[in-house]
Amino acid sequence: MADLVRIFDTTLRDGEQSPGASMTSAEKLEIARALARIRVDVIEAGFPAASPDDLAAVRTIAEQVGATEASPIICALARASAADIDLAWMGVHAAARPRIHTFLATSDLHMQHKLRMTRDEVKARVGAMVAYARSLCDDIEFSPEDAGRSDPAFLYEVLEIAIAAGATTLNIPDTVGFAVPEDYGKLIAYVIANVTGDFVVSTHCHDDLGLAVANSLAGVSHGARQVECAINGLGERAGNAALEEVVMAIRTRGDYFEGLAVNVKSDELARTSRMVSRLTGYHVQFNKAVVGRNAFAHEAGIHQHGVLADRETYEVIDASEVGQEAAQIVLGKHSGRHAFADTLEKMGMHVQGDALNAAFVRFKELADKKIEITEADLEAIVAEELGAGIVHRYSVHELELHGGTATKPSARVVLGFGDGKVEATGSGDGMIDAAIAAISEATGVSGTVGNFQVSSVTGGSDALGAVAITVDSDGRKVTGRGVATDVVEASARAYLNAVNKLVRLRERGEVREKIEGV
Amino acid sequence: MADLVRIFDTTLRDGEQSPGASMTSAEKLEIARALARIRVDVIEAGFPAASPDDLAAVRTIAEQVGATEASPIICALARASAADIDLAWMGVHAAARPRIHTFLATSDLHMQHKLRMTRDEVKARVGAMVAYARSLCDDIEFSPEDAGRSDPAFLYEVLEIAIAAGATTLNIPDTVGFAVPEDYGKLIAYVIANVTGDFVVSTHCHDDLGLAVANSLAGVSHGARQVECAINGLGERAGNAALEEVVMAIRTRGDYFEGLAVNVKSDELARTSRMVSRLTGYHVQFNKAVVGRNAFAHEAGIHQHGVLADRETYEVIDASEVGQEAAQIVLGKHSGRHAFADTLEKMGMHVQGDALNAAFVRFKELADKKIEITEADLEAIVAEELGAGIVHRYSVHELELHGGTATKPSARVVLGFGDGKVEATGSGDGMIDAAIAAISEATGVSGTVGNFQVSSVTGGSDALGAVAITVDSDGRKVTGRGVATDVVEASARAYLNAVNKLVRLRERGEVREKIEGV
Repeated sequence: MADLVRIFDTTLRDGEQSPGASMTSAEKLEIARALARIRVDVIEAGFPAASPDDLAAVRTIAEQVGATEASPIICALARASAADIDLAWMGVHAAARPRIHTFLATSDLHMQHKLRMTRDEVKARVGAMVAYARSLCDDIEFSPEDAGRSDPAFLYEVLEIAIAAGATTLNIPDTVGFAVPEDYGKLIAYVIANVTGDFVVSTHCHDDLGLAVANSLAGVSHGARQVECAINGLGERAGNAALEEVVMAIRTRGDYFEGLAVNVKSDELARTSRMVSRLTGYHVQFNKAVVGRNAFAHEAGIHQHGVLADRETYEVIDASEVGQEAAQIVLGKHSGRHAFADTLEKMGMHVQGDALNAAFVRFKELADKKIEITEADLEAIVAEELGAGIVHRYSVHELELHGGTATKPSARVVLGFGDGKVEATGSGDGMIDAAIAAISEATGVSGTVGNFQVSSVTGGSDALGAVAITVDSDGRKVTGRGVATDVVEASARAYLNAVNKLVRLRERGEVREKIEGV
Repeated sequence: MADLVRIFDTTLRDGEQSPGASMTSAEKLEIARALARIRVDVIEAGFPAASPDDLAAVRTIAEQVGATEASPIICALARASAADIDLAWMGVHAAARPRIHTFLATSDLHMQHKLRMTRDEVKARVGAMVAYARSLCDDIEFSPEDAGRSDPAFLYEVLEIAIAAGATTLNIPDTVGFAVPEDYGKLIAYVIANVTGDFVVSTHCHDDLGLAVANSLAGVSHGARQVECAINGLGERAGNAALEEVVMAIRTRGDYFEGLAVNVKSDELARTSRMVSRLTGYHVQFNKAVVGRNAFAHEAGIHQHGVLADRETYEVIDASEVGQEAAQIVLGKHSGRHAFADTLEKMGMHVQGDALNAAFVRFKELADKKIEITEADLEAIVAEELGAGIVHRYSVHELELHGGTATKPSARVVLGFGDGKVEATGSGDGMIDAAIAAISEATGVSGTVGNFQVSSVTGGSDALGAVAITVDSDGRKVTGRGVATDVVEASARAYLNAVNKLVRLRERGEVREKIEGV
């Protein structure tokens, strides 16, 4: 039987730490469901100590996505402290297969400058906290942060302490993305050779030099049997190893990775990539490997000829293997509510209650303007509705826009609010600016717009425009999403979506604690 | 003295083969100038046999960017035929240091299915054509296409024939992006061990499995002394190795790449990346290594703390090393023509005559609406003007837009055309759609809109919106660019920019020959 390389997805933890990529619990749950569908082995669902919302999201995922023995392992991150570990356990304990992942830095640089702890203090803390976590949960992962720059002898010592205290997986992070494949492969081999005990070794590589996937694969070649990675390579700074690239490299190069297997199915990688892109506002560049829009396209003639003559001459991966064909037409303006819900279900999107009602209303509005609604369009519509976190404080009732080169752009909005309506006008340097001013005026919520991303869902000037907009307000940063046939309307909807999130956060008085990652 | 790893940039050849990334001669010249500024060793300027425009672009670059012995080598690609080689030589001969790069496939798969040639025929053709190229030019590069899947013994034989015929550089392409670093490193080592003669070995890796940079670096570790790469990793399908990642890996990991050096300066990598992104319409994802917007950003608190305490704890590369600080404010509405031209010159953007006039007019229009014009804004303004290919057939005179949820979006345009004006109205599902309909009506040129990309130049709702739009018309595909404070206006300008390009192509009756790459 083939040796399994476990795929540990950290989109919801390290990926979510990307600036402006923070998601609501409903959005995280949707992504966790998609990850379960493609059969990742472990879902790192969050960092419960970061905020009550993070804890709630992890708990919901444990209950709804991790319920059975056939479900993925649901993991939560915790610093090496009893308080963090307690919160992590509260998050994951409802899962059939829970895991706690705790970490502490082992490089001199981090111990001195960040932890201000001695080597002996670090060893004692690791022993005590891994043992404490193990007293709660049978499946414990330990990460020595900045392992790549740690003194090897000290690193092995700490890892043996973790094993003796009950850790079952040892994750060796290249925290700063400094490694090259040869070094990182050796580091993994040395850990296996020098640490006594029964454990799975895991990779965790950052992409600062563009080498995260290569380093992860070098780890696998040298004995690692878990790879930590994220959809679209999301993560801090330049991100983590891209899940889709790691999976397709191992699958496509079975001759090289002989005797190794991955559980992840490839045929929904493209859809999962689109979902994560839409929910985080992090677009995938056209020439991104495996999931980029052009990953399988050929411009030059002979390559096309080659493809026609024999696909093997140029393409290693078939577009259909990763589900990257043009999204098929699924629904039209005459489709009913049942067909709509049914199609979402088939696509693996679980939307219920008020969110389903709201999504159906938006679907009908858009289907009226656009003859064909594709799968990708549906994804965008649902993403807008999920973004509001189920409850809509404000909704778009009417929007009027005027602009051009001769007049100052202006907007008038009428928003639904509870049973009533609020109305306001605004102007600006552009119509989007004007619409945002009008919405700020009507809602009394204003913020600074940071990232602003527009993409056409399917291509063509009559395609749906999907907008993701990051808004900073009183130290809170949220991402709003909107979709419409008109790009200014989509932007107004995205801004209102962000406003709804801000209102909800203020009502809860919640401040997310700023804490560390691996 | 350190051993030089030559950086061979193929942004203008392999990169330009990306669907919809085709550029005008003026745009290519601008990129070539930027490449010379960062000191790449070789610029592959194009594929002269592809079209008269490609030949003209290569020739202009050879004359204006390759004029002195201190300039980069200017290279042109040619299939292994006398006709192609003659055109390549016409393109590069004006350079102080010209190079001809010719290629022929050596894998059984390609020889049988694509070339329909026997091994003996391939050997004879390589010998004859490399000798012919060498009779014209002293610097000859030969690439055995699909080297990675070629029979090694046959590959070495063909390479020795090329050396005997006068080739000075042997480029070993992983045409299909199928290699893993260990294999590719061995391939390079075997070529060096088994091919007799005096030559430089070059890498050329595609990123289909996300391993292009790692494979290129493995090649360098095994003796390659030239790396073919492209800004932002542009290129067919998932693209080539990213120049900025290769350069920063070698520079940052001097301990690993001991005794090796690169000439490329890092401090304008970010600006060069932005320029290529804008001129090709290929956006860079936020989490792209080295040049992504977030490559140096930290969200999680302790990482921020770590950065403050000691930059070394988390960042391997300093943002300023690659010139990725926030673009500084450079000009305002009171800046005059001289200051404008002077600033462009300092930024390395060479714009003269009509294009400078047009760019200055646009600058004043935008400065009137926006108090501060940043470097990034200036780059966008100039990119729009360059895109029109100096001569503007049509220009935006007036634009009026109306839209919202209650009315069908509509647009009215008045375009300047020679000394006269044309006017038209249009409507659509969105205001962009309406503006495009009006422009199509006014100009009589219509096309299918494919890729449509909007980005804010600097962030914030009042930022300039930069739009890149790909238009297909009668089998021609062009990219138009526009910038404005209003996103719909920017889209209308981008579409008109594309229309101007189409008109120019039709006037020349030019059809680009579809041909192959490496």
